[in-house]
Amino acid sequence: MVDRLTIVMPIFDRMTQLDFTGPHQFLSRIPNAKVLAASVNAEPVTADGLTFGSLEDLEAIDRCDILCVPGGSGCFAAIENGRYMDEIRRLAGSSRYVTSVCSGSLILGAAGLLRGKRAACHWAFRDMLPLFGAIPDDARVVRDGRIITGGGVTAGIDFALVMIAELAGREVAEAVQLNLEYAPEPPFGSGRPETAAPGIRDAVFARIAAAAPDGQAIVERAAADLMAAVVATVQ
Amino acid sequence: MVDRLTIVMPIFDRMTQLDFTGPHQFLSRIPNAKVLAASVNAEPVTADGLTFGSLEDLEAIDRCDILCVPGGSGCFAAIENGRYMDEIRRLAGSSRYVTSVCSGSLILGAAGLLRGKRAACHWAFRDMLPLFGAIPDDARVVRDGRIITGGGVTAGIDFALVMIAELAGREVAEAVQLNLEYAPEPPFGSGRPETAAPGIRDAVFARIAAAAPDGQAIVERAAADLMAAVVATVQ
Repeated sequence: MVDRLTIVMPIFDRMTQLDFTGPHQFLSRIPNAKVLAASVNAEPVTADGLTFGSLEDLEAIDRCDILCVPGGSGCFAAIENGRYMDEIRRLAGSSRYVTSVCSGSLILGAAGLLRGKRAACHWAFRDMLPLFGAIPDDARVVRDGRIITGGGVTAGIDFALVMIAELAGREVAEAVQLNLEYAPEPPFGSGRPETAAPGIRDAVFARIAAAAPDGQAIVERAAADLMAAVVATVQ
Repeated sequence: MVDRLTIVMPIFDRMTQLDFTGPHQFLSRIPNAKVLAASVNAEPVTADGLTFGSLEDLEAIDRCDILCVPGGSGCFAAIENGRYMDEIRRLAGSSRYVTSVCSGSLILGAAGLLRGKRAACHWAFRDMLPLFGAIPDDARVVRDGRIITGGGVTAGIDFALVMIAELAGREVAEAVQLNLEYAPEPPFGSGRPETAAPGIRDAVFARIAAAAPDGQAIVERAAADLMAAVVATVQ
């Protein structure tokens, strides 16, 4: 049994829903932990055709033990949403662990939380991390101090098991894994860009880029703002 | 490109949300397919602390190409919900594929759809399948004619990739797999009862059984009703 843990997942429109629902399913099975799904103004969040309601108001949450930020093509709009980013920075300030899944690490980066840190990201967006001073790592789960990040989408499940072992011990993690029958057998081997057929890889990359046409510009702008803030602090 | 496909996922309170959200994430990436999340009366569904809104009214859906039923401890209440079960039987009647994830196969069984069919199920509930005349199979994805069933929870992702290959071809399935970076690396090996530590397995089984104390009785009642209906048809 672990002490009562509060895990906050700040969600947003056009996230990739499985970035959120995958880890949520696993983390919510930790005995004595509560996982809060939260949004700005407690507004319902729509993602991949699903609508998530009954959310917590992000600004009303005091503090948390684990902050876990999902990704998806909506992450760029989230980066440009000042109220959302203020809460990411505020909650990260007091959180024992600051974590993300998929391109959620770009949000952490834009919040100034990844400078000099190794971090994971969805493979198609990993090259953007250095703009925020982060060191991209292609591992499925990457730990650098209190920053723990997962790779793209389904990596959020591996990430969650690593988190559960860290928070509640390996036996609890193994019990949750068995409960959710996580003994994956992918029928194909194309889950990484290195193992996918080049034609498929290029087509998927093009489709992902087209879903977030302003992503690169937003990240560059956020990186410039971050640099300006750092310079202002130093002066 | 495939013809416009309609996939219906009939959901219910206290399902295991990842039984639903995992396949939904993968299936919704098939070009030219729509995945409808539906409930009785289009009522919001709560599961594992999440609330799913903006649902379709199950009774208002004409037909579908694929019916995909999730599981979870709420499956027993679903089996006892006549309006829900009527829609399962109706939609299954015209569907090209009748499918399930996790203990969703018990719902298909109770609807009389699995007689003489091999089917998967969550490991903790697999022994209930023969009560409905089904043949339990411990594979992650089991196909028997137009019936395709996945094992417990996370097996829904492997199931979804098998479905995508069937519906839209292997290249589309591989593209979706890469998009969602499905190259799993479970940190532990306890995802199946055969590979988990016996103490952990017994504790998890006890916890799952406690979450559905009336499950066995409901399944036995549903099996008896089904048998009575078969006898009535024969006479």
